Order: sequence, then C-alpha cells, then structure tokens
Amino acid sequence: MVSISDPAVQSYALYSTILALKMLGMAILTGKTRYGKNVFANEEDAKASKGKVRYDDPDVERVRRAHLNDLENIPAFWILGALYLTTGPAASTAANLFRAYTAGRLIHTFVYAVKPMPQPSRAIAFAVPLFIMFYMGYKVATFYASAL
Amino acid sequence: MVSISDPAVQSYALYSTILALKMLGMAILTGKTRYGKNVFANEEDAKASKGKVRYDDPDVERVRRAHLNDLENIPAFWILGALYLTTGPAASTAANLFRAYTAGRLIHTFVYAVKPMPQPSRAIAFAVPLFIMFYMGYKVATFYASAL
Amino acid sequence: MVSISDPAVQSYALYSTILALKMLGMAILTGKTRYGKNVFANEEDAKASKGKVRYDDPDVERVRRAHLNDLENIPAFWILGALYLTTGPAASTAANLFRAYTAGRLIHTFVYAVKPMPQPSRAIAFAVPLFIMFYMGYKVATFYASAL
Repeated sequence: MVSISDPAVQSYALYSTILALKMLGMAILTGKTRYGKNVFANEEDAKASKGKVRYDDPDVERVRRAHLNDLENIPAFWILGALYLTTGPAASTAANLFRAYTAGRLIHTFVYAVKPMPQPSRAIAFAVPLFIMFYMGYKVATFYASAL
Repeated sequence: MVSISDPAVQSYALYSTILALKMLGMAILTGKTRYGKNVFANEEDAKASKGKVRYDDPDVERVRRAHLNDLENIPAFWILGALYLTTGPAASTAANLFRAYTAGRLIHTFVYAVKPMPQPSRAIAFAVPLFIMFYMGYKVATFYASAL
Repeated sequence: MVSISDPAVQSYALYSTILALKMLGMAILTGKTRYGKNVFANEEDAKASKGKVRYDDPDVERVRRAHLNDLENIPAFWILGALYLTTGPAASTAANLFRAYTAGRLIHTFVYAVKPMPQPSRAIAFAVPLFIMFYMGYKVATFYASAL
C-alpha cells in the first residue's frame, strides 16, 4: 500500500532526511557558539578549552532553545508524515505539505538562531509547520478512528 | 508481514497520532501559560507583548517539564511500538498495550501540567507507560537477538 | 523492497531497540541521582520524599544533559537508519554502521553520566555516531534527490 516507488513516499524520505540533518546541525551550531564565546556546560569541556562553565550565555541559550524547538516538532513530523502516507493522499498534496513544512522549519531556525529577527517572523515560521502537523494528524486520526 | 489492513497496525497508527497531537498541544499550553503570566524566553517575544523575559516562572516551567517528559517518552513509543508489531503479537494484546500507554501519558500530562496533583499520581502515570515500553523493547530485542 | 526477513532490517530493529531502552534508562538514572541527593524538580516530589527543590545539583544536571543529548541524536538515528535501509545498502555495511552507532552512544552515556571522564572521550563518543548519521543522511538525500 505504501511503496518506496511512490513519489509521495520518496518526497517523505527526502524531506525527513533534510529535517534530520538540519536538526543535527543545531549541535554543531551550539558547539560553534560555545567555542566562539568560550562558555561550556561541563567542567571537563571548559578545562580542555580554558573556558568558563556558564548556563546563561544569551547566544548559546538562544541556539539551544531553537534546538529544543526542533526536538518538539521534527520527530512528530516523522511519525505523522509516515502515517499520513498510509491514508492515500494525492502525491502532489503530500509532497507540497512536506515541502512547506521543511521550508517553515528552515526559516524558523534562521530567524531564531542564525539571524534573530523581530516577531512575528518566528511565530509564523513556527505556526505553519505546526498547522501542517495538525492537519496530517487529523487526517490520520479520522482515517483510523474505528481502531479506537 | 506488517500491513495497514492489520487491526494492530491501525491501532498503532491511531494511538501514535493521538500521542503526537497531545505532545504538540504542549507547545500551545506553554504559549497560553506564557501569555497568561506575560513571561517569555526571548527579548523579541517580550517586546512584542510588553512582557518580561524570565526563566523561573513556576507555572511555565512546570508545563515545560511535562513537555520535556513527553519528548523523553513518546518518540520511544513510536519506534518500539512499530518494531513490536513486526514480532507478530496478538492484535488485541498490541491494541490494549497501545491504549494503556496512551491513557497513561494523557493522565501524566493532566496531573503534571493541567491540574497538578500530589504524588504518587504522576509517578504511576509515568511508570505504567514506561513499563509497557520496556516490555515491548524486551520482546523486540529477544525476537531479533540473532542480529547482534 | 524493505522486508523484516532482511538481515539489515533485523539489525536495525535490534539496535534501534537497544538505543530506545538505553535512552529510557536515563530517566531511571535521573531518578536514582535525584533520590540519592534528595533534590527534585517539583514541590510535590520534594514533599513526598522530604527533599529539596533544586535546579542546580551538578550530578543531576549532568545526567539530564546526557539524556537531552540522547533526545538530540537517537530519534534522528531511528528515521535516518530506516530510510537508509530503503536505499539498498549492503547488509553487512548497514549492520556495522548500526553497531558502531550504538556502541558510540553507549560509550557517550558512560563517559558523560556514569563515570565522567576528561575530554576528548565524550567528544569522540559523540562525533562517531554523528558522522554515521551524516553519512546515512547523505546517502538517503542523494538517492531521493529527484523528489525535491
């Protein structure tokens, strides 16, 4: 029913991977910010770099909040997107949802942690992907409602 | 081997989705609590709402802890539940485990962040889903042990 | 195309489960550390154990950082590993990547939270699994690039 030869499934595979790599990139961005400001979360890291242990550096904490926001959203996309594919959506609809979701999350990271911008830029970049997840979740829940 | 026409798989799809939507709801609950108390995590958010940046509001932090607890548990259910289905459990057993897991996590959120209650209410609502995950994980690990 | 009778898929199932159980174990390690030092995150927990509410206990926070690091990495492995299997890798290559990933994450937890060790032990135990995820992600992204 769901086959890897289906364009919607291929789209899911590609965008899920882009999102995973983007999320993993947050660890690198955190590290870069830590080394740039020489502040660390662990004594052994501070010692190795002759830096300080601090938990309130605004730049580091901003990247960490953006990272946590990814954890709150991207794994939910992986499961909801996969299950949504099993409900038989039109391939172009599914692919466009995945594209819009990914674009939203990339913009979210950019306006949150790369180049902080005034609201409502981040609010919009957060809300559009969230809305897409609620839409897919609604589709899946109604499709399988009889399994309650 | 695992087909979407299988009632256990349909049950997995439904409960995984309910859990995803519940988890995403935590972001909305955090936002609601932030606006209710006018405390924010970012300068640009505080500015937009004429509020304060604070990281120690007890109500906001409680919702955030409940959210983090979801992140620590619900994605693990998605993978363990899916892999458990590949071990050929009875459909009714699988469906009942998924139901009990979901009920436990809903109760956990309620007694933690919606209507805080004295222990051991939260401890029980945490332990039952955790036990179900350890059970499913044990089943999967022994089923595929030869792949070590 | 991807079948549970495929040794690479069985390897994925086993190592994904080991990683899930290890990650869930962090909650137990946090609880053990909290009870050992009698410090808690919630008033109702402190009351039940005649302990204190504290957010800066170094031992508890270290375990929590190790746990968060799991959340930042292990769910990404679940999705990238699954999608990587759809690109038709040699079974032995896939299994060895999954083994190395799992070994790296187990060592990471050990040197971070069980028996803290000087750098670069944790850096290496972090970087090897991260590199494996970037490799798998690269393979998936190029395989499905036409779905952009």
